[in-house]
Amino acid sequence: MSAPTPLSDLEIARRATLKPITEVALAAGIPGEALELYGNYKAKIDPAKLGPEQGQPRGKVVLVSAMSPTPAGEGKSTVTVGLGDALAKAGHRTMIALREPSLGPILGMKGGATGGGYSQVLPMDQINLHFTGDFHAITSANNALMALVDNHIYQGNALGIDPRRLTFRRVLDMNDRALRQIVIGLGGPGQGVPREDGFDITVASEVMAVFCLATDLKDLKRRLSRITFGYTYDKQPVTVGQLKAEGAMAMMLKDAIKPNLVQTIAGTPALVHGGPFANIAHGCNSVIATQTARRLADVVVTEAGFGSDLGAEKFMDIKARSAGFAPSAIVVVATIRALKMHGGVPREELLAPNVAALQEGVANLERHVDNAAKFGITPVVGINRFSTDTDEEVDWVLEWCRQKGVEAASADVWGQGGGGDGGDELAAKVAQAINAEQNFSPLYDLDLSVDKKIETVAQQIYGADHVEFSTLAKHRLAEIEANGWGKLPVCMAKTQYSFTDDATRLGAPTGFTITVRELIPKTGAGFIVALTGAVMTMPGLPKEPAAMRMDVNDDGEITGLF
Amino acid sequence: MSAPTPLSDLEIARRATLKPITEVALAAGIPGEALELYGNYKAKIDPAKLGPEQGQPRGKVVLVSAMSPTPAGEGKSTVTVGLGDALAKAGHRTMIALREPSLGPILGMKGGATGGGYSQVLPMDQINLHFTGDFHAITSANNALMALVDNHIYQGNALGIDPRRLTFRRVLDMNDRALRQIVIGLGGPGQGVPREDGFDITVASEVMAVFCLATDLKDLKRRLSRITFGYTYDKQPVTVGQLKAEGAMAMMLKDAIKPNLVQTIAGTPALVHGGPFANIAHGCNSVIATQTARRLADVVVTEAGFGSDLGAEKFMDIKARSAGFAPSAIVVVATIRALKMHGGVPREELLAPNVAALQEGVANLERHVDNAAKFGITPVVGINRFSTDTDEEVDWVLEWCRQKGVEAASADVWGQGGGGDGGDELAAKVAQAINAEQNFSPLYDLDLSVDKKIETVAQQIYGADHVEFSTLAKHRLAEIEANGWGKLPVCMAKTQYSFTDDATRLGAPTGFTITVRELIPKTGAGFIVALTGAVMTMPGLPKEPAAMRMDVNDDGEITGLF
Repeated sequence: MSAPTPLSDLEIARRATLKPITEVALAAGIPGEALELYGNYKAKIDPAKLGPEQGQPRGKVVLVSAMSPTPAGEGKSTVTVGLGDALAKAGHRTMIALREPSLGPILGMKGGATGGGYSQVLPMDQINLHFTGDFHAITSANNALMALVDNHIYQGNALGIDPRRLTFRRVLDMNDRALRQIVIGLGGPGQGVPREDGFDITVASEVMAVFCLATDLKDLKRRLSRITFGYTYDKQPVTVGQLKAEGAMAMMLKDAIKPNLVQTIAGTPALVHGGPFANIAHGCNSVIATQTARRLADVVVTEAGFGSDLGAEKFMDIKARSAGFAPSAIVVVATIRALKMHGGVPREELLAPNVAALQEGVANLERHVDNAAKFGITPVVGINRFSTDTDEEVDWVLEWCRQKGVEAASADVWGQGGGGDGGDELAAKVAQAINAEQNFSPLYDLDLSVDKKIETVAQQIYGADHVEFSTLAKHRLAEIEANGWGKLPVCMAKTQYSFTDDATRLGAPTGFTITVRELIPKTGAGFIVALTGAVMTMPGLPKEPAAMRMDVNDDGEITGLF
Repeated sequence: MSAPTPLSDLEIARRATLKPITEVALAAGIPGEALELYGNYKAKIDPAKLGPEQGQPRGKVVLVSAMSPTPAGEGKSTVTVGLGDALAKAGHRTMIALREPSLGPILGMKGGATGGGYSQVLPMDQINLHFTGDFHAITSANNALMALVDNHIYQGNALGIDPRRLTFRRVLDMNDRALRQIVIGLGGPGQGVPREDGFDITVASEVMAVFCLATDLKDLKRRLSRITFGYTYDKQPVTVGQLKAEGAMAMMLKDAIKPNLVQTIAGTPALVHGGPFANIAHGCNSVIATQTARRLADVVVTEAGFGSDLGAEKFMDIKARSAGFAPSAIVVVATIRALKMHGGVPREELLAPNVAALQEGVANLERHVDNAAKFGITPVVGINRFSTDTDEEVDWVLEWCRQKGVEAASADVWGQGGGGDGGDELAAKVAQAINAEQNFSPLYDLDLSVDKKIETVAQQIYGADHVEFSTLAKHRLAEIEANGWGKLPVCMAKTQYSFTDDATRLGAPTGFTITVRELIPKTGAGFIVALTGAVMTMPGLPKEPAAMRMDVNDDGEITGLF
């Protein structure tokens, strides 16, 4: 167990020595002509300009998932980075693929979102702030569409778009509660047509989901074109293609769509690209980044948002299926803190040693471990070690895993880094797993009806008894079938804190019902979002926003990211 | 006279051979450590890392202004680029400083805004689309402020901000009419506090004006801090500093504030940086870019929005005064087309030869020429030659200038480029002018009261008899004095088409009154905006937006920018 480090993430990041990104690229086998530099430590890679020997994706994919998290999160990005570093250290040709952080939550609560401690991707401040502009490009493309839509209505509305039935909203990469519900187009005939509207955060945009599922620029344009942004007065869907907006939108995304290369503190190459919400969307970095990494490396370590019930299930049923690759291992990140929480310990007592609570809480971990196997993939439990964890607690979990017959290792990648000794054991277990035979298959067949697909996920992954559909959701099911969207996979929007749709039901509940309130077809991304409970698509700022503590000095050095 | 080129601007741009930007930087004497690459053809320059021999700004400044333009514009950016190229060709160590284009108008009508023909800055497509992300960073900083403001009100409103008296608005770099007047914060107690609001286009943001007047990061933060975003229930101004938001805002702008280096078709170095509106703001590229260019070059060619009555006056009275430099020459761009329009020729007949109309219209040019002299600076008339102009027409204008005693040259920089022979004569006249003695002084003294400053501009520059202040404006004048803002310069918001506040009064009207409707203090930028007539701060899209014709092919090549 390492002593707690007194340095903040930003301080650790600042003390790290970065290699020029050209050097990182060279070591990763990326030809110079495929590299577009953004300063000395960031670059975009043009996949079309990789070498002929890098023709086909071949690297094995390790997905880092987690048990049901505490509100603080269980350090999935940190473990992803640390595991990647440890695999690289062990001699595997490794690349990491991560989501880009969203500016809104950074200004709100999070401070930063690029791993932590000695397992971070760098340059931390730049990745957290604007980075290479991808989210801004997505924001622009999304909002250009909506400006074109409202202009179309204003200029005569040849398509007969019903202003009361627009399903697409404007976005900002900001936590801005006051924009959730608004009325636009006020001020008289010269100022547009009044209607109800609202802004989502950029990561909730369907353009973001499309961006992250597209395989290339051509596929991006095709997917943008088939986005349904609303309905006509005749209740027929209207698409971006009908408005002829996909060309301009794709044009605005042509550079953003190239994956961003950075490095970890240990110098491992990482592609940080795209970042859709893990509730209203599928919560994984871009397919282009994952596939590019697989062309360049033997092992690709990547993550998916929240626990196995959300991110991992969507990774398998949406991303891997759509992109056509089979993951080779799933790491289920567990923390002593989260196990205790699921064992019923109140938040203020989570730091106190409590093996009895682990015994109660481990049922949550067990269901996540069992979920991995349902996709035919070997799970490995990775205990993300905190300095407050006791050896007794960690040993208890390892012993439980041994008895369960699942490989497990504790990892101190935060304190020691994967480039140090913090991730060696976990890396060894993962290396073992990816060499074992895997039998990946998605959970459900696309030919099932939408309600059956939802029931399959709810019963097999969540452990629900059955699914109830609201009157509205039943109505939508019929519409979806009538519009020919019934073969799309489902994208479940559910609380990340519980297997149920009630955030307060911890552990591994049984005998419960999942209620589907509403279904939202995302015809560009290519999935049907099923909403259970309220889903926040525009977060708010807290009483004391992190932004208030942020600053930059005269030399351009930042404080307040952490 | 050159034959009309059959190629579009985008096609000409695509055929040009670009030098690696590192080579352009090397030739301009920029040390490698001051250069941050954005791909192969764009770079940011960190002024703090220039060499010791580049310590003080010393280059002479040539301002390119214009007569009152037609709606199509008179090619000021094209002449600026072409003149810079021609000066460089003649052996002067030259740099060009331009504004960054705004995405909104590009998607609407303009197509592109980086010069034209053979006088363009490159890479044209990238400069027009996202570029190095500066406008996105400004959008983010602006909107972060407003999210913090509305959150402050929602979380208890300790500062007592009156939601009915907010003067700052959110922004998007988009032409989006429907966002001009909106109501936000709807949906009940959990969704914020309802209030009237609206979005401006990013170039109209005070953050943009601040960005363009700041001398460095420290000054940027100081100016951000003193922005007044609204008033309390007690009608006292509330500033960004009181909300403690300037640190986060400056942090978001820390990279954007570094000027962007690109090149012209002829390979002349150009700094393209910042771009405030020329009506509600001062309409010039950033002070940091102009001063950086002056540290690197002997001659800096730059432009200011619209005619001498707007851009040039503000360039002198706001930008040059605030930054502390004295311009050495003003080029007044004239076109045969605009002269005919001011001579009363209807739009559809502007292409037909008509010397008689020139005689009528030249009064407009004359007032612009005389305006330059009012700042103690030598004017040079530059006729931006079109292929439809006859030699007789051009000769008539040159002869008029000779009789008037003002230097003049015709320039075919669009058709031949300044790197060709198109700008040689104009460059020679300008080189002559900047070697002559200049006696720069701003038009008015800052100690004058705000109404007297406005009267001075209206009478001396516009030719008005007097200025009438609305009841509201009179009320504001008193408030401005009471709040201690009376020593700020004024920033006139007036139609660019006429010296009067009525866009239809062409030529050089006399005996008219300028009506000031409203005064808006911009305490961060450091000027008082005086609105005459309606000022559009959020443009709309036309019936057939340019965006509908834009596309990108599978190889990432763009069409529809022009």
